[in-house]
Amino acid sequence: MEPIYLDHNATTPLAAEVSKAISDALDLWGNPSSLYEKGKMAKNAISKAREQIASMINSHPSEIVFCSGGTEANNNVIWSVLESFDKWKESTGDKHILAHVITTSVEHVAVERPLKYWQDKGRLEVTFVPVDPSTGAVTVDAIMHAFRPTTVLISIIMANNETGVIMPILEIGRALDKYRQERKSSSRLPLFFHTDAAQGIGKIKVDVKELNVDFLVIVGHKFYGPRIGALYVRSLDNDVEYYPMLFGGGQERGYRSGTENTPMIVGLGQAAEIVIKNLAADQNHFRLCRDELECCLEKLFGDSILFNLRVGNRLPNTSSVCISRDGIYNGHELLSRCPFVCASTGSACHSGSKPSAVLIASGLSEEKARSTLRLTVGRSTRLEDVRKAAEAIKKAYDSMTCS
Amino acid sequence: MEPIYLDHNATTPLAAEVSKAISDALDLWGNPSSLYEKGKMAKNAISKAREQIASMINSHPSEIVFCSGGTEANNNVIWSVLESFDKWKESTGDKHILAHVITTSVEHVAVERPLKYWQDKGRLEVTFVPVDPSTGAVTVDAIMHAFRPTTVLISIIMANNETGVIMPILEIGRALDKYRQERKSSSRLPLFFHTDAAQGIGKIKVDVKELNVDFLVIVGHKFYGPRIGALYVRSLDNDVEYYPMLFGGGQERGYRSGTENTPMIVGLGQAAEIVIKNLAADQNHFRLCRDELECCLEKLFGDSILFNLRVGNRLPNTSSVCISRDGIYNGHELLSRCPFVCASTGSACHSGSKPSAVLIASGLSEEKARSTLRLTVGRSTRLEDVRKAAEAIKKAYDSMTCS
Ligand SMILES: Cc1ncc(COP(=O)(O)O)c(C=O)c1O
Ligand SMILES: Cc1ncc(COP(=O)(O)O)c(C=O)c1O
Repeated sequence: MEPIYLDHNATTPLAAEVSKAISDALDLWGNPSSLYEKGKMAKNAISKAREQIASMINSHPSEIVFCSGGTEANNNVIWSVLESFDKWKESTGDKHILAHVITTSVEHVAVERPLKYWQDKGRLEVTFVPVDPSTGAVTVDAIMHAFRPTTVLISIIMANNETGVIMPILEIGRALDKYRQERKSSSRLPLFFHTDAAQGIGKIKVDVKELNVDFLVIVGHKFYGPRIGALYVRSLDNDVEYYPMLFGGGQERGYRSGTENTPMIVGLGQAAEIVIKNLAADQNHFRLCRDELECCLEKLFGDSILFNLRVGNRLPNTSSVCISRDGIYNGHELLSRCPFVCASTGSACHSGSKPSAVLIASGLSEEKARSTLRLTVGRSTRLEDVRKAAEAIKKAYDSMTCS
Repeated sequence: MEPIYLDHNATTPLAAEVSKAISDALDLWGNPSSLYEKGKMAKNAISKAREQIASMINSHPSEIVFCSGGTEANNNVIWSVLESFDKWKESTGDKHILAHVITTSVEHVAVERPLKYWQDKGRLEVTFVPVDPSTGAVTVDAIMHAFRPTTVLISIIMANNETGVIMPILEIGRALDKYRQERKSSSRLPLFFHTDAAQGIGKIKVDVKELNVDFLVIVGHKFYGPRIGALYVRSLDNDVEYYPMLFGGGQERGYRSGTENTPMIVGLGQAAEIVIKNLAADQNHFRLCRDELECCLEKLFGDSILFNLRVGNRLPNTSSVCISRDGIYNGHELLSRCPFVCASTGSACHSGSKPSAVLIASGLSEEKARSTLRLTVGRSTRLEDVRKAAEAIKKAYDSMTCS
């Protein structure tokens, strides 16, 4: 029997249309910078994909930069902000001022680690704002409370990949408006608002105009697209400064050098197209399956089950669950006894034995973090799948506690 | 009629086996870090590709780091060397010493621009060693002459993408040995030898053991593979220091974070496999076609044709040609009148109107650089293609000079 895949926050399969688009676009092998027809065809295909991505998040094609993935995009945002800060510093002549960054205690490592790297290098100071343990979300107040005259970047994950908790990006953007105005008229120290939307795209509505962000990171393989990414930069070429971290042939209008990965870019555009069409239906389907899953688990485990952070706003496809209140088992061991269910205990890139740092930062005890399962449904999940998965988890759990 | 593609140094089509490998591997969509079967399948496919790449250049799989392309790989090498230098500097306590880099005046922009960036930032000093205008190659002596006690990196393009001239990497590596030994026993200042082999792979023999390099950059789309790349790092994890520039999930043993682009990696491995099998035959075929092309052009243009830098060691597939000794025409215009031939005047990412800086640095006059055509044959080129191409070029040329 095919195992049931409940790890859609780790990665999604390619949508059939995306697979086809990529396979077809393998023929568009011309160098997009070449002047003859073969090059132009590739270039046009990339333009189309750029429009699709832009349209998905209600932005303009000129605001989209394709890159190799979410990790690169997040790293480049931080790099770019440091460049902006350096240029500002040069213009003031003040050598001792240090850039300050506000972020959350539950960022993905692709934001947390570059920030820590630059902090260790003495290039910036970071405030990791803790989330409210009752909801798993940061509050607008807590973020604003961390604001300093030297703050240049506020970087907030749109929705956490492990807990599924959605952060108040819109509200933070609004609260920031006052500071943005102030900065423009006084110190002119740049101030950027960034969100890593890797887990938001394809699961919740993402509209950059509404969100009022300067940077937004898009990761293909989280919404049935390929393993590349795109970065939205508000008013690129215009209002908002953005500096590349890779230097070379000047592709992507100079913002991201390197010969374009045409087939993957075409696939990313196709994946965006599907999100535009199907988001509402997908959300309903995700919620239906996830709720059924939680309901089944509740029935099977009764009182002893605990749904982490189910109180607030969370992704419709994500369940973070601890199936014994005292967390006396190890999530990894449970999953290894349950090969019929593909799931994880935390983010995929953290599949080691330590309890997830994000779960602990979200307020879970070490025991609970260690026994938490992340179950994330997707487009192809069926109601009968989640029922069977719940039963398989129950069986595996029983086999553990009996032995 | 299908145009004839003579721009294989700009990019190559995917080999049929590579296309198939990529399309098939779209099914390997599991996250390679996931612990269940779907993840392991992806992980195993990546391991296999790593072995294929390693085998192609006579290295060990542990020495290969997959990344998004040649631009990223070259940028990361320079970044890594700066990190090594910083760590060394910290250990000595000497704050004023500046890292020195030796490179050539004909590097690809993916090496030249990051070096200039870091030079402008005051983080290193670069000596751009001019090539010998009679051969287009740097000499070992000129490189060694530039050597300083503070030299930390020697970065030499293996073969130039525009002229096809092959650089004496082997000989430079040998000459460096003395300095490497000295450094180890005295100052312990690191010393790295890097080559950008983007244009070497698939066209000439590339054996890292023989070449004695620390870093070597591999670019898929130059040898019938996909738009990603790989970096060879000698004795990675062991002897040679290497520092990542992208921080995140710690993929690629921490050397390159970001969820792996499995299908493209599988395709890269397949492309390597073909190079291993076919290099000797390919080389013969390239040489045959290129020589026939030059022969046809010579017949058609007679005395007025000039083959740039044909005297020394050059790539078997590349012809850099100026079809009128005084260079009175514009290469771009010529090509635009000749849509039957896909070719370029310089590197693809430089398709603007200025004469190629590399050609000028290679000793060509501005006029000659402006009227140079780069004609590069490939696996699918047939003898009749190059004959037809030569004729088409002649026709286009005549139409220009007559009008
Ligand atoms: C929230 C978030 N940000 C960033 C990433 C990084 O994406 P990638 O590993 O594809 O570079 C991921 C997924 O891995 C993620 O879940
Ligand atoms: C010599 C050389 N180095 C590096 C590159 C950069 O490769 P990419 O543009 O695929 O990153 C190229 C080709 O574009 C090249 O010819």
